Amino acid sequence: MSKIGFIGVGIMGRPMAGHLQKAGHELFLAKHRSPLPKELTDGGAAACGSCKEVAQKSEIIITMVPDTPDVERVLFGPNGIAEGLSKGKTVVDMSSIAPVATKEFAKKINELGCDYLDAPVSGGEVGAKNAALTIMVGGPQATFDKVKPLFELMGKNITLIGDNGAGQTAKVANQIVVALTIEAVSEALVFAAKAGVDPARVRQALLGGFAGSRILEVHGERMIKRTFDPGFRIELHQKDLRLALEGARALNMSLPNTASTQELFNACAANGWANKDHSTLVRAIERSGVA
Amino acid sequence: MSKIGFIGVGIMGRPMAGHLQKAGHELFLAKHRSPLPKELTDGGAAACGSCKEVAQKSEIIITMVPDTPDVERVLFGPNGIAEGLSKGKTVVDMSSIAPVATKEFAKKINELGCDYLDAPVSGGEVGAKNAALTIMVGGPQATFDKVKPLFELMGKNITLIGDNGAGQTAKVANQIVVALTIEAVSEALVFAAKAGVDPARVRQALLGGFAGSRILEVHGERMIKRTFDPGFRIELHQKDLRLALEGARALNMSLPNTASTQELFNACAANGWANKDHSTLVRAIERSGVA
Repeated sequence: MSKIGFIGVGIMGRPMAGHLQKAGHELFLAKHRSPLPKELTDGGAAACGSCKEVAQKSEIIITMVPDTPDVERVLFGPNGIAEGLSKGKTVVDMSSIAPVATKEFAKKINELGCDYLDAPVSGGEVGAKNAALTIMVGGPQATFDKVKPLFELMGKNITLIGDNGAGQTAKVANQIVVALTIEAVSEALVFAAKAGVDPARVRQALLGGFAGSRILEVHGERMIKRTFDPGFRIELHQKDLRLALEGARALNMSLPNTASTQELFNACAANGWANKDHSTLVRAIERSGVA
Repeated sequence: MSKIGFIGVGIMGRPMAGHLQKAGHELFLAKHRSPLPKELTDGGAAACGSCKEVAQKSEIIITMVPDTPDVERVLFGPNGIAEGLSKGKTVVDMSSIAPVATKEFAKKINELGCDYLDAPVSGGEVGAKNAALTIMVGGPQATFDKVKPLFELMGKNITLIGDNGAGQTAKVANQIVVALTIEAVSEALVFAAKAGVDPARVRQALLGGFAGSRILEVHGERMIKRTFDPGFRIELHQKDLRLALEGARALNMSLPNTASTQELFNACAANGWANKDHSTLVRAIERSGVA
């Protein structure tokens, strides 16, 4: 059993840390303005005064925080993880952040004699609770092999994609496909509805052929039933497409439909739907305009 | 067994007519500049001098031609099907054409005392050969029930979507989803490749989650293996997206990603790839620009 630090026990991190604890691992958490989850402290998780202390007491430190600057802060800020690391420890960032920044973070952690994996997930709160996350990993094979038993407690479809940053790149690719497929299904179902045709029957007919996808199945149904509670919030998908568009600019390439889909998410946010499920994008198409 | 007229025995129509003949139905074909398929005439198909004669000799007349003007010509042109119809016969248009024109064609055929179904298909040449087409039908329930045994000889996933035009509307919706999902997968895989990550591993990781689709499976693999032989030709998908965009304008709605994806198909055609598989769209993204 390992001593595991877990930074970021929010909607996703909380059930993920819970799975590790239930399997018998010893958890170290950082105290926070809001109280730590009771089930974790009741289960024996230690509350440390700082990320530095978490890193001092743990062998493997997992981070699961919202965005690139948050990872930078908990890793390299005052009393951060880097200050508490010693040779041979492992940092695993499971947040979804910028691939380029990830490579820098990994390099700086490696320079301390420690290993680094980027291991972002998809599957949302339901996947986290059911230990059914897809985990896309970047880093050395040996580190991946060492941490894999922990990943297997949290997820099901676990792939080493490549070197550090490759996990984050795969996650960005995932979010591009998900957003643009939601947009595609939105255009198709609204087209049918405006033509006076039942979109539920169209969805059913399309599911069996080349237009079939998990998005048509799950999000297509949400669009038809008008169930727009998240799920995955538009404001989070805006962050992911920002990573895609900033990455594309840095890579000197163009992502035309990612850009227009981001505009549609922006239109949703402008309408007050930033906290709704990303399938709410259909409403921007229904209103027939980008802004 | 029925007397079936079949107008349009090309890449798709030829194997479809073959399935009807093998099941024991009597086929009537119209003579053409190019010779009629030998296996059909050897099997007993009668070669008629005109579409009018085909309609005179058949109970059910199926049309499978490229575009809206072709359907109009074989139905209502000189020596066309309409001239040979008599009360109680049924016209089944399995071409992929404009939904609005379809409603007009159905009305004119109904005025002759005949029934009309629009029944476009998806699944391509492979689906046609394997009798595995998806068939999306618009028209009266009773007519659908009467013709369904014939559809079952040609396809597998057969759905009555709604009134006349609804089959064509569903097909347009299908082609929107297919094109935009190919575009989504293209952006994601090129993003990964430009970031130095193996797109094959990204595709594999994404298949298990919400980004999973038939397109990621089939067309994603074509993109990675660079196998761009059709399949389904870009020039045909350009036609389908034209139907979508013209339809959207008539319906007073906006299809932003259908429009930009059509531009990417146009860029492919400008590069000389109009006869390549629609997965060739990835090459337009690789070149990082719309034109």
